[in-house]
Amino acid sequence: MGKSVLILNGPNLNMLGKREPEIYGSTTLADIEQLCNAHATSIGLDCTFMQSNHEGELVEAIQNATGHHSGIIINAAAYTHTSVALMDAIKAVGLPCIEVHLSNVFSRESFRHTSYISLAATGVICGLGAKGYVLALDALADTFDQQK
Amino acid sequence: MGKSVLILNGPNLNMLGKREPEIYGSTTLADIEQLCNAHATSIGLDCTFMQSNHEGELVEAIQNATGHHSGIIINAAAYTHTSVALMDAIKAVGLPCIEVHLSNVFSRESFRHTSYISLAATGVICGLGAKGYVLALDALADTFDQQK
Amino acid sequence: MGKSVLILNGPNLNMLGKREPEIYGSTTLADIEQLCNAHATSIGLDCTFMQSNHEGELVEAIQNATGHHSGIIINAAAYTHTSVALMDAIKAVGLPCIEVHLSNVFSRESFRHTSYISLAATGVICGLGAKGYVLALDALADTFDQQK
Amino acid sequence: MGKSVLILNGPNLNMLGKREPEIYGSTTLADIEQLCNAHATSIGLDCTFMQSNHEGELVEAIQNATGHHSGIIINAAAYTHTSVALMDAIKAVGLPCIEVHLSNVFSRESFRHTSYISLAATGVICGLGAKGYVLALDALADTFDQQK
Amino acid sequence: MGKSVLILNGPNLNMLGKREPEIYGSTTLADIEQLCNAHATSIGLDCTFMQSNHEGELVEAIQNATGHHSGIIINAAAYTHTSVALMDAIKAVGLPCIEVHLSNVFSRESFRHTSYISLAATGVICGLGAKGYVLALDALADTFDQQK
Amino acid sequence: MGKSVLILNGPNLNMLGKREPEIYGSTTLADIEQLCNAHATSIGLDCTFMQSNHEGELVEAIQNATGHHSGIIINAAAYTHTSVALMDAIKAVGLPCIEVHLSNVFSRESFRHTSYISLAATGVICGLGAKGYVLALDALADTFDQQK
Amino acid sequence: MGKSVLILNGPNLNMLGKREPEIYGSTTLADIEQLCNAHATSIGLDCTFMQSNHEGELVEAIQNATGHHSGIIINAAAYTHTSVALMDAIKAVGLPCIEVHLSNVFSRESFRHTSYISLAATGVICGLGAKGYVLALDALADTFDQQK
Amino acid sequence: MGKSVLILNGPNLNMLGKREPEIYGSTTLADIEQLCNAHATSIGLDCTFMQSNHEGELVEAIQNATGHHSGIIINAAAYTHTSVALMDAIKAVGLPCIEVHLSNVFSRESFRHTSYISLAATGVICGLGAKGYVLALDALADTFDQQK
Amino acid sequence: MGKSVLILNGPNLNMLGKREPEIYGSTTLADIEQLCNAHATSIGLDCTFMQSNHEGELVEAIQNATGHHSGIIINAAAYTHTSVALMDAIKAVGLPCIEVHLSNVFSRESFRHTSYISLAATGVICGLGAKGYVLALDALADTFDQQK
Amino acid sequence: MGKSVLILNGPNLNMLGKREPEIYGSTTLADIEQLCNAHATSIGLDCTFMQSNHEGELVEAIQNATGHHSGIIINAAAYTHTSVALMDAIKAVGLPCIEVHLSNVFSRESFRHTSYISLAATGVICGLGAKGYVLALDALADTFDQQK
Amino acid sequence: MGKSVLILNGPNLNMLGKREPEIYGSTTLADIEQLCNAHATSIGLDCTFMQSNHEGELVEAIQNATGHHSGIIINAAAYTHTSVALMDAIKAVGLPCIEVHLSNVFSRESFRHTSYISLAATGVICGLGAKGYVLALDALADTFDQQK
Amino acid sequence: MGKSVLILNGPNLNMLGKREPEIYGSTTLADIEQLCNAHATSIGLDCTFMQSNHEGELVEAIQNATGHHSGIIINAAAYTHTSVALMDAIKAVGLPCIEVHLSNVFSRESFRHTSYISLAATGVICGLGAKGYVLALDALADTFDQQK
Repeated sequence: MGKSVLILNGPNLNMLGKREPEIYGSTTLADIEQLCNAHATSIGLDCTFMQSNHEGELVEAIQNATGHHSGIIINAAAYTHTSVALMDAIKAVGLPCIEVHLSNVFSRESFRHTSYISLAATGVICGLGAKGYVLALDALADTFDQQK
Repeated sequence: MGKSVLILNGPNLNMLGKREPEIYGSTTLADIEQLCNAHATSIGLDCTFMQSNHEGELVEAIQNATGHHSGIIINAAAYTHTSVALMDAIKAVGLPCIEVHLSNVFSRESFRHTSYISLAATGVICGLGAKGYVLALDALADTFDQQK
Repeated sequence: MGKSVLILNGPNLNMLGKREPEIYGSTTLADIEQLCNAHATSIGLDCTFMQSNHEGELVEAIQNATGHHSGIIINAAAYTHTSVALMDAIKAVGLPCIEVHLSNVFSRESFRHTSYISLAATGVICGLGAKGYVLALDALADTFDQQK
Repeated sequence: MGKSVLILNGPNLNMLGKREPEIYGSTTLADIEQLCNAHATSIGLDCTFMQSNHEGELVEAIQNATGHHSGIIINAAAYTHTSVALMDAIKAVGLPCIEVHLSNVFSRESFRHTSYISLAATGVICGLGAKGYVLALDALADTFDQQK
Repeated sequence: MGKSVLILNGPNLNMLGKREPEIYGSTTLADIEQLCNAHATSIGLDCTFMQSNHEGELVEAIQNATGHHSGIIINAAAYTHTSVALMDAIKAVGLPCIEVHLSNVFSRESFRHTSYISLAATGVICGLGAKGYVLALDALADTFDQQK
Repeated sequence: MGKSVLILNGPNLNMLGKREPEIYGSTTLADIEQLCNAHATSIGLDCTFMQSNHEGELVEAIQNATGHHSGIIINAAAYTHTSVALMDAIKAVGLPCIEVHLSNVFSRESFRHTSYISLAATGVICGLGAKGYVLALDALADTFDQQK
Repeated sequence: MGKSVLILNGPNLNMLGKREPEIYGSTTLADIEQLCNAHATSIGLDCTFMQSNHEGELVEAIQNATGHHSGIIINAAAYTHTSVALMDAIKAVGLPCIEVHLSNVFSRESFRHTSYISLAATGVICGLGAKGYVLALDALADTFDQQK
Repeated sequence: MGKSVLILNGPNLNMLGKREPEIYGSTTLADIEQLCNAHATSIGLDCTFMQSNHEGELVEAIQNATGHHSGIIINAAAYTHTSVALMDAIKAVGLPCIEVHLSNVFSRESFRHTSYISLAATGVICGLGAKGYVLALDALADTFDQQK
Repeated sequence: MGKSVLILNGPNLNMLGKREPEIYGSTTLADIEQLCNAHATSIGLDCTFMQSNHEGELVEAIQNATGHHSGIIINAAAYTHTSVALMDAIKAVGLPCIEVHLSNVFSRESFRHTSYISLAATGVICGLGAKGYVLALDALADTFDQQK
Repeated sequence: MGKSVLILNGPNLNMLGKREPEIYGSTTLADIEQLCNAHATSIGLDCTFMQSNHEGELVEAIQNATGHHSGIIINAAAYTHTSVALMDAIKAVGLPCIEVHLSNVFSRESFRHTSYISLAATGVICGLGAKGYVLALDALADTFDQQK
Repeated sequence: MGKSVLILNGPNLNMLGKREPEIYGSTTLADIEQLCNAHATSIGLDCTFMQSNHEGELVEAIQNATGHHSGIIINAAAYTHTSVALMDAIKAVGLPCIEVHLSNVFSRESFRHTSYISLAATGVICGLGAKGYVLALDALADTFDQQK
Repeated sequence: MGKSVLILNGPNLNMLGKREPEIYGSTTLADIEQLCNAHATSIGLDCTFMQSNHEGELVEAIQNATGHHSGIIINAAAYTHTSVALMDAIKAVGLPCIEVHLSNVFSRESFRHTSYISLAATGVICGLGAKGYVLALDALADTFDQQK
């Protein structure tokens, strides 16, 4: 069986594609989950997809990744900019971790330019929409290959 | 039946009036709820009153407002100054939203002068005590009238 | 006779509704005055409505409020962000004072996010259009009731 | 008859050339007015020249420009750096407006490096002495030609 | 029976000693709990030890301390630097409260140099490892003695 | 006849001693004027005492000092912190100028710690109450003596 | 023939892998070029690979991309943090552009946390080593597919 | 023969009018050159027009102006905000120098509000489009006349 | 004989308890010395207690601790916030060092929130009054035990 | 016998008038002492004049003023801007204290614009040369009169 | 043959001594080159002297130093304050590198107080004129001796 | 007899080489003194070498240099970053002064990047170890030669 990747999604991402599709596009988080599952399978990885609006739940999901997953993909959404706890959790488990953002956060409000997640993540992919998750899976697969 | 308003109250507001009444006054959150219910009825609105100390629960209450409520009144208390997630949720649901604070936050500590909620809210009412909730209901009623 | 409220309007508010109604709406300051008079009467208050483009005139209007008015509503417009003199005047007369802004100043340029008026005012109402003046009258009426 | 331009001069510019000519030069504001009138006539424009030390008078002069003038030239002097009210007035009337400074404000004290006027003006000319007013008239004439 | 102390531990402290002992040492949170219980007993105090990764749960634990505990020891970990809600809760219950950190936070990243908890706490003990909890118990015992 | 000194007082100083004497003391601006006149006479100086709430009037009073007065004493009150125009006027007339504040502005709000007047004044006297005006007269007398 | 991608590399990237391989790894820029060519061919794209230490040459390479390339991948290295000119060039040609960094720039010196390139780029990939270029090619291929 | 003026244009100005004319207008740099030549001739000046994307070339063009030109007009584009070297070159040659910008840089991104060029230039003209170059020629002609 | 601890007290601590006991309490520095001596003896330590108002004397006391003392307790008072020299001395001798403050410095003026001592100290204890010295002795004793 | 005033002078003031008289004037500190003694006698006060280059000595002089002096005049020179210890000492003794500076520190380097002394002093006199000491004596005399 | 030193000079240093000798002195860069050559010979070193106004050329000169030179002396002039690329190049080649400035950059404009070069250089010599280059040669010779 | 140079060393430099030689090297301050004496003699200078941990003593050593020494070399160590008094003393005596640091202060903590000494010194030499003192002697000798 392939290595497993935990894919975490932060607050309000459950709203994706459900409202105002003319603005945010019609891709839902379920679409992204399906995309991730399909791509993971095609490159021999398993993936577990999760969304939470609760900082504490996301912290615990990261803590529990140890022993069950080989890498983490995280789109922490709003908590990206405010959560030291998520950063500490990522550092604590020590797994390779790719930070993903759907939009280019650097072209938005200035408080979105700082990320606590970036201080702990292996790498960052932003601005590439749902494709960013797929690329993050490829990046983790590449990391796993180098660990062999 | 009248339009419905969701009235959200953030962390520690459940302590209101229960302790040190000589300092904070003796009005409890239950008193404010009663005041809101009475005034809402008098102007033909329904209202749902809720308090939570959990950022994630408040985020989800806002998300779930769609389809059930026509407007939101929020006193996010301490989360006002730290929660990008609440701001994102308010923007996501797109309902008219009035930010309320019991005290004049601008005459308190400087970290209370910035509000993420204000970046997403329609309007702000602060420093007017429990009366601020009543005025916020009037403001929403006015907004609903203009939408007709 | 009812208690009297002084309603002060700062620079450029005399232009309201007269130009570019497609942008700023067609409500004029005269409309707001009429709205205030009507509402004040309905809740048993008198009100005196005034506009000036001169910082000094606004300062003196506040100074002269003592003995003639029981409360002040002020939309200081551009002087909100630059006038320590208005703040000092409000502090000096010691009357209850509600700061009003037609638009949500917190979603505009960053230099509009600081208000010297807020440091002296009892409360703040912003982003609710002309309705904000009406709510401010209600708030003052509530304050007068509590003083009894 | 030619189009008309309002030329506004802010605080202390009435002192120009009257004192310490060895430092500030001997050109007076009356000289600049004469220079402007002569040049305006030569390019088919009318101009109205005004100086005030009062922020409120300058605000009202801009407000009253509508219907009487087709463009504004403003040297707001010290109010350049402190008056949000002048900026709002310029934005409100919507006329083409050229900001002029006699000296290069960027090589003076740091508080002279920010200009509220610049946020509303069409263009800025500084550091070119009295000639700057003449160039501003040319620039407005050019703008009027393009409006035809 | 002795007075009771609530000992609160914030996010990721449940990971303590479980991972990378060569870096963080091998002391677990259970070890610290045992250490606290033993020391509390030896000086005639009871203590309740709790850990949570959820800001809201920590807020509520503080709120519920009233009537059950005479003092609080809190190591808020990552929430130290981001939670106004915890600060407000500590102020609301008004119990003596000692802030503890295992490491010297001032020799770590700069965002760990500011603490909202410190603004509400009676005192701060940091950089002394698990011993810091023991000293905090002594400090509270001393406070209780002075209250007699 | 003695040399003449212009004593200027800025916004809200006309309220001095008239309200809340238990806080601000009972000395009125008229008392200070009388004190100044008496002391000026005793040391052979004339003085002209003036108060205005209008920035422009204060600017013009300074401009007109040339030829009529040999020195200026200014308590610009709130305009101290916001008026570049007053600073420019003082620089333009080039008379010796003493800045006076009744209270120690450095122990008040931080926005009162910067003074545009100080950048142009010869010297500053603050925190010494009405006596500060008397000392400023002495200081100017001393300056006049040295000019002889 | 496939669409063409311009891959730009900024200052000092020509040193990659040539010196101190124990620190920076032994991958050279030639290795990355070979990796890019192989991957581009495998997904039906052409690519042109270029390195320059000259800001002006990089600006002109971007300008000349129009008509020859359908997308740009840029690792601007040190110019990332200092070149407004590169940002302006990317905005001027309007092609989809992916910013790549070999290391996680956010865990390095603070002056590397700001990027002018990010303000103009479609997306950013950093911290994933040479693999980042491969992912950027995939991202552009995805973009081209969506343009069809 | 008339005095000669060097007109320098910085990075990306060669793209002017060639792309996206609906946004940036259809005026090309060649149009501006023609406009400058025609106007220079009409007022008895020669002019040399040059564009470069290379900071070093622009520095050297300024250095070489000595002995060949009597004044400089410079639109340094992106280098305006980042090049101390251009500022030093302008100071070194000591020729009168007018800084020109087509758009009002003060109404764009905040990093465009600072200009190293302004610290060395005689004057600044911005926001007046191609006409700004013509006015700069007039300003230099005026300067030359005063040097006679 | 027990290990020895040097207890250093900075400027103005000699005034402790001697003046305004209603404000600062009546505990004198001699009381604290006695408390420290008693407690040190009870846990088998020696201690040397010293106060100086001179930064240089405190620096030299730290330097001379080598060979005579096994640990340092320092309440640097005002020098906490201004003395790089004390920090360098603590780093130079390399002894375990506990920083103590009687009051919670984080709830006082903002310039008291930064401590150079904290950058070199093992741990910090503040806000616990004279008891803080006793706890610091316990903390050092604990450190000495672990060194065995 | 009259009340006694302690006049303290900080670092480098012993150099006054001894070097570069063409720059700093020829008044020495001895001249100022003589001036102070003469004036003190004339208004019925005693004064003790002291200079030190040592921060600690100045701190102790202030501490020892209690019981011997009724007020303090301090020109802390360079220590004005760096010494929290002097501020604490002044607060500790609680005597009326006038801060004096010979030059207008606000027109010098920006690091001279902040004064720790001002946070503790009753009043400030600056920019008036040696005369400032004389005025400070008058101000203290006035304070003593009001204490009677 | 002796070890070789590369001496790099940045933008505008080719103007040295050629213009305004009354201000900048009459020493030319050729004079400094001659001085360096003479001194290098006298201490058994070779030196290669180069100036460029192009950032990219300076970057490449540093890159090419490997294998040809044993140390670098660099006066990066204006690029000192703006070039991350030069810093990266110095770090990449890993040669001992002395940063030289003719003037004391710390007593000039504030933007000249930060140096990217200093972050990579072994040492810095500034304010000592042409002699600084000679001292830098001595320093490198000393370094070479220690490497033996 | 040769000219004399005063070499001043600030706080903690007496600890140099005495402790932790594996970190700081084994060179002691006595070694540096010997190195300086030898070199001074070899170039015909006398030198007086002094170390103090007391800011006031260093200030007075500088003051007393007048008449006894022709130049100063100062390594103010920690006082470099905090002492305005030392800067004022150097300015007061007006002797050529070279600031020396053993390490490259710019690659250490950020509070070591600012130097009050640099604002008054002729030149700065840092990062070159003990050799920096020797080079400073050469630099002063060069200065003395130019004074002849």
